[in-house]
Amino acid sequence: MTATPRVFNFSAGPGVLPVPVLEEAQRDLVSMPGVGMSVLEMSHRGKFFEGVLAQTEADIRKLAGVPDDYRVLFLPGGASLQFSMVPLNFLPRDGSADYIVSGAWSQKAVKEAKKVGGVKIAWSGEAANFNTVPAQGDLVLDPKAAYVSYTSNETIHGVEFTSSPETGGVPLVCDTSSDMFAGPLDVAKHALIYAGAQKNIGPAGVALVLVRDEWLKRRVADPALSSMLNYAIHADNGSMYNTPPVFAIYIMGLVMKWLLSIGGLPAIRVINERKAATLYAEIDRSGFYTGHAAVACRSLMNVTFRLPSEDLETTFAKEAKAAGLDGLKGHRSVGGMRASIYNAFPEDGVDALVQFMQEFERKNG
Amino acid sequence: MTATPRVFNFSAGPGVLPVPVLEEAQRDLVSMPGVGMSVLEMSHRGKFFEGVLAQTEADIRKLAGVPDDYRVLFLPGGASLQFSMVPLNFLPRDGSADYIVSGAWSQKAVKEAKKVGGVKIAWSGEAANFNTVPAQGDLVLDPKAAYVSYTSNETIHGVEFTSSPETGGVPLVCDTSSDMFAGPLDVAKHALIYAGAQKNIGPAGVALVLVRDEWLKRRVADPALSSMLNYAIHADNGSMYNTPPVFAIYIMGLVMKWLLSIGGLPAIRVINERKAATLYAEIDRSGFYTGHAAVACRSLMNVTFRLPSEDLETTFAKEAKAAGLDGLKGHRSVGGMRASIYNAFPEDGVDALVQFMQEFERKNG
Repeated sequence: MTATPRVFNFSAGPGVLPVPVLEEAQRDLVSMPGVGMSVLEMSHRGKFFEGVLAQTEADIRKLAGVPDDYRVLFLPGGASLQFSMVPLNFLPRDGSADYIVSGAWSQKAVKEAKKVGGVKIAWSGEAANFNTVPAQGDLVLDPKAAYVSYTSNETIHGVEFTSSPETGGVPLVCDTSSDMFAGPLDVAKHALIYAGAQKNIGPAGVALVLVRDEWLKRRVADPALSSMLNYAIHADNGSMYNTPPVFAIYIMGLVMKWLLSIGGLPAIRVINERKAATLYAEIDRSGFYTGHAAVACRSLMNVTFRLPSEDLETTFAKEAKAAGLDGLKGHRSVGGMRASIYNAFPEDGVDALVQFMQEFERKNG
Repeated sequence: MTATPRVFNFSAGPGVLPVPVLEEAQRDLVSMPGVGMSVLEMSHRGKFFEGVLAQTEADIRKLAGVPDDYRVLFLPGGASLQFSMVPLNFLPRDGSADYIVSGAWSQKAVKEAKKVGGVKIAWSGEAANFNTVPAQGDLVLDPKAAYVSYTSNETIHGVEFTSSPETGGVPLVCDTSSDMFAGPLDVAKHALIYAGAQKNIGPAGVALVLVRDEWLKRRVADPALSSMLNYAIHADNGSMYNTPPVFAIYIMGLVMKWLLSIGGLPAIRVINERKAATLYAEIDRSGFYTGHAAVACRSLMNVTFRLPSEDLETTFAKEAKAAGLDGLKGHRSVGGMRASIYNAFPEDGVDALVQFMQEFERKNG
C-alpha cells in the first residue's frame, strides 16, 4: 500500500502518532463499517460520532483518573486560544493572576493574559534562557491571585516540571500541551488543564480541556464574551455548541484506546523514561553533545542539545534527515537539536538516533 | 478494503466529500509518498505541508478568481468563531453594522455582533419562518454602517440568495458556509467572505476566509483583542500564527483539486442546478410533498420539504435510512425533511431519493 517507508519523526508538533491508530484510520477512511461513510463527512449529531465523543471522554476519564466533578471538553484553536480563554473566563479585570514563566509557551500565555487583567510573574527562567524550572521556594505567589498558571513541559526549551507547584489553595491552571498523558497526572490538584492535541494525544485541530465544575461556576466572564470563548457554553453543550473537529476527535479517541491497550499512563511513563534515559545518557557520555536543560528538569518529551558548532549542527540535521531521522533541528530561539520523543515515538527510533550520534561524533569529533 | 458499502449521505454538515478525495487520503494515510509519515503527524513547518498550504491557496484563487489584493486565510473554530471575529475586528463599539437575517445562522451572527457594538436589522424573514430572502428593495440599509452582513445560503431553512445585496459602497460580509464554491461567486463585491469548511469544501475543523487587504488595514480592533481572534495576525503569519489544523487543510486542498479537475465552479454549478431541479420537480409534482422555501429563493444545497403529517415524516426518515438514504431528517426548527445535496453529493443519489419519494407516496399517499 505504501511506497515510502515510514521515517523516524522527531517533530516537536504536530508529532508522531501510533502506527496502529493510523492503520485503523486508514482502513475505515472511505467507509466506516456499519455506517457507510467516512468519519471525515459524518454529522456530529449522528449516532456514530456521538458514540466516539462519549467513548473518548470515558477513556480519558479512565486513563487519567479524572474526578467526576471535572468536565472534559474538546475545543478548537489549540493551546493558543486557551491562552486567551483562561483569563477571559477566570481573570477579573481588576484582579491578577500569577504566571510561572519557564519558556516560550508560558511567555505567550502571559502576553494574552495581560490583555485581560493583571499578571504577576511568579518566577521567570528567562535570564538563563529557560534551562530550568523553579523549585517551590523560588515562587513568589500572591494568595489573592485569581489562579496560578504554569506550563508543565516547555516544548521549545525542553524543561519539564517533575511535580506541580503548591499554591496554598489558589486555583492551579496547567498547559500540558507537550506532555499530556506522558505519564500519570494529578488532575484533582488542578482547577483547569489544557493541551493542544498535536503533540502527544492526537492531530492538530483540537484542544483537550479538563476543568473543575465548581471553578467553572465561579467564572467572571464579561457577558459580552464571544460564545465560542466561553467554557460554560461549551460545557453546557457537551463540546457541541458548534460543529466540533469531528475527525481530530476521532483520531484522539483512537490514541486513547491505544494508550489503554498498552497499559495506560503508568506503562507509557516507564517507556518514556527509558527512551529519555537512553538519549540523555548518550548526550552525557563524551562531552561532544551538550544538553540545554539543567539535569534535574530535563524533559522526557523534548530533548534539546547542542553540538560544538553551528556548522556541525547544520550538518547533523541534514545527515540525520538523509538517514531517516526527521525533524531534529531545534527551535531558532534555543538553537542546536531537539529530539521530540512523544508517547508514540518508537524505542527503536531512539536507538537509531543514538547510533547516528555515535557515528557522527566519530566522524566529526 | 471496505466492508460496508457507502450510503447516500444527505447530512447538512459535516457533509459528503468526493470519493476520489477520500481514496487519495486513504492511500497516503499511513505514509505520504516521498515523506514517510502521515499528514496527521506532519509538522506544519515542514516542506510538505507548506506546499499543501500554498497549493490550496493557489487553487482557491484560481477556482474563485480571488483578486490579488485579497488574503486567503485558514482559521480554526468554524463559522461560529467568525460570527465574533467579524465584529471584533470591524465593528466600532460606538458604530453599528447592518445584518440581513434570513435564517438561524444569520440570527446567530447577530447575537455575537450585538456583544461588540450596534446592530441594525436590515431585513428579517423571521415572521414567515425564514422561507424567503429579501429583494433589494426590502432592505433598510444604513449608509454609515461599518458593514452589511448576510448569509448566502441558510442551511436550516433552505433559502439562498440568487444575487448578493447592493450596499452602495458599504463593505459587504458574507457567510457562505453552506454554498461556498457551489458555483461562481463575485469575491470582489465582498470585503470579507467566510465559510466553515464542513459543508461544501472540506471536513469540520477549519474555516476559509477571503478578506480584502485594504479593509483588513482599516480594522478597528481593540488592542486587547486575543491574538487568535485578530485577522491581521493570522494574515501576517500566513495562517500559521499557531499550529493550523493540518489535516483538515490537506483534505480541503484535495477537494479544491477535485473541483478544478471537473471543470471548476461553472461546471459544478451546472451539476448542482441539475440535481436541485430534479429534486424540486419531484416535490412539486403531486402535492404530497411541500417545499418550505419560496420557489424564487430555493437553495441549491439544502432542499427542505414537508410531508402531510409528522407521523409520515418520521416514517419517511426511518425507511429512507434503511434504504441507504441517510441524514434526511430536517432541523427541529423547520421540521420535515432536508436533503443536503452539496457539491460532492452524487447525482445518482438524487435519483435514488426521487425514486424512494415516489414509492413512499404510492404506499402512503
